[in-house]
Amino acid sequence: MRATVIYGERDVRLEEVADPTLSTGGDAIVRVVAACVCGSDLWPYRGVQPTTEPHRIGHEFVGVVEEIGPEVKTIAVGDFVIAPFYDCDNTCINCQNGVSTSCLNGGWWGSDDRLGGFADGAQGEKVRVPHADGSLVATPSMPGDAQVPGLLTLADVMGTGHHAAVSAGVTAGSTVVVVGDGAVGLCAIIAAKRLGASRIVAMSRHADRQAVAREFGATDIVEERGEAGVARIRELFDGIGADCVLECVGTKESMDQAIESARPGGMVGYVGVPTGGPIAVRPLFGRNVGLNGGVAPVRGYIEELLPEVLSGAINPGRVFDLELPLTDVAEAYAAMDERRAIKVLLRP
Amino acid sequence: MRATVIYGERDVRLEEVADPTLSTGGDAIVRVVAACVCGSDLWPYRGVQPTTEPHRIGHEFVGVVEEIGPEVKTIAVGDFVIAPFYDCDNTCINCQNGVSTSCLNGGWWGSDDRLGGFADGAQGEKVRVPHADGSLVATPSMPGDAQVPGLLTLADVMGTGHHAAVSAGVTAGSTVVVVGDGAVGLCAIIAAKRLGASRIVAMSRHADRQAVAREFGATDIVEERGEAGVARIRELFDGIGADCVLECVGTKESMDQAIESARPGGMVGYVGVPTGGPIAVRPLFGRNVGLNGGVAPVRGYIEELLPEVLSGAINPGRVFDLELPLTDVAEAYAAMDERRAIKVLLRP
Repeated sequence: MRATVIYGERDVRLEEVADPTLSTGGDAIVRVVAACVCGSDLWPYRGVQPTTEPHRIGHEFVGVVEEIGPEVKTIAVGDFVIAPFYDCDNTCINCQNGVSTSCLNGGWWGSDDRLGGFADGAQGEKVRVPHADGSLVATPSMPGDAQVPGLLTLADVMGTGHHAAVSAGVTAGSTVVVVGDGAVGLCAIIAAKRLGASRIVAMSRHADRQAVAREFGATDIVEERGEAGVARIRELFDGIGADCVLECVGTKESMDQAIESARPGGMVGYVGVPTGGPIAVRPLFGRNVGLNGGVAPVRGYIEELLPEVLSGAINPGRVFDLELPLTDVAEAYAAMDERRAIKVLLRP
Repeated sequence: MRATVIYGERDVRLEEVADPTLSTGGDAIVRVVAACVCGSDLWPYRGVQPTTEPHRIGHEFVGVVEEIGPEVKTIAVGDFVIAPFYDCDNTCINCQNGVSTSCLNGGWWGSDDRLGGFADGAQGEKVRVPHADGSLVATPSMPGDAQVPGLLTLADVMGTGHHAAVSAGVTAGSTVVVVGDGAVGLCAIIAAKRLGASRIVAMSRHADRQAVAREFGATDIVEERGEAGVARIRELFDGIGADCVLECVGTKESMDQAIESARPGGMVGYVGVPTGGPIAVRPLFGRNVGLNGGVAPVRGYIEELLPEVLSGAINPGRVFDLELPLTDVAEAYAAMDERRAIKVLLRP
């Protein structure tokens, strides 16, 4: 089969690799129907995270189950399934606590798995899924083609945006600022709206993304950044800032922006992979601004969000503004890198 | 009158100063019945925070109202009052949001006030209290002498310990670790117990403080620190750590201890004045450990805690293990600095 391998900075290739085979009794082999490129895939692509040896890449996919191991109980051959961006048993104490990204037996696509093997990346034709019962969620029936993009967002960006909102404590009447207008930031707007936010400010400088932000529920757009951005946000909220700030980027600038945009006693829900180094505690301490979030345990959110995606009540699939065949994976990365696309969907 | 002035490292003096006078219509003049020395007073005392010019010091006091300005409505001459460790109007938007330490019109004892003057320190015979209606809480009747220490803790340490517990989300059944066995840490144990924690670990190496911790509700004591301390805590809680960790020190070591002692998805409630520099985000992000808290808005907690102090349901006054006349203020600082006392009460 063919799968994507990253070799180094701006060097991703679709290569012929061995087909996956069942390895443990709890595995499933899933034929990928759609995968995509994540903002965090751009860190190694841009060389910010060095690639020391070539490896499979991609961690978001939906597909159809082709084979299952003898211990698999809840997933059947032929099911259309959503995989979170990691695998998990969904039974260990951390999974029970709602933190399946800290599963004691889980692992990451395209990385060492915790069973001693090396997990497949998602940007390929097939993926071996460990802990299939824990990791995968099957849709009630075979979805139509138009539903695939929305379902694919449940693998990561929609669940991650939701985690930002949940972590920031968004509830009915909350005032919200979303820092970041990538796919996660845009999905965070959907999440804030469905949790009842009364006002949602999207910080964005790109007209196309501003349009999606408004469509998703943003009530205000702020284009300024840095001190001017903070001043504008405070001006919008009684001079003090917003109740909840959803940080969906991960840089030093975005984290500073988020912290300063929260009102005293407010909460920053952050899901952007942190690349900005350590943060000063005093600006949090002095104003009682909390910091909550992390690598989003999206597995636990799929059941809650799936019905709304299937019914069209929410339309996170809208973040995919470019669709390419898997053979054009290099162009998919380039389009994301150059911000020609918000998010690229790949069809094997 | 006499009041304490700090001149520099290990140099505090009781001096003759001018009596305070009413300055705004909302002021009250309070005759101090009891004051005390705070762990945070030790930062300038030890020279960790340099003292650039001599100034009044002390921020915890209870007393009797001697004079009020014409605009004061809720406080009367003769009332026994508790002052939080800052003044606040209790009406601005931040006060309404429960963050009276960020009062738009408030200030700090022994520091510039926001009305253009210089506020009195609490370690003196009298204090001018701006925003008397907002800042002060009167007891329903004149307390007995034995009730004074407990009431004095509501000025800071009991409310601050409570803030750590509230910020960490302690609720019925929570597992809790308290980092720090000073007065705030010990009060945090009381707070965690009254909020329903099922298990409370006190990290302490001092037999006298361990005894108070157990009296206050600690179910376990951990003496180890650093990696050994983290290992011991995780061992006590299913190998993963506690739901809620209350950080009551403020150093780099204590913050690291707190973060590593929280389980994935857990929350650190921190109230120790941060002196440890910036903190790494990855250890929080990777395990979804939240960080919440700050300079405790104790004014808002006084009404909730006061009845339990008066009834004896909680006994935070127990943290005072040394009582001295105000004339011995230098010895009070030395006793705290050398850890000969947990907390020293001063009577003018």
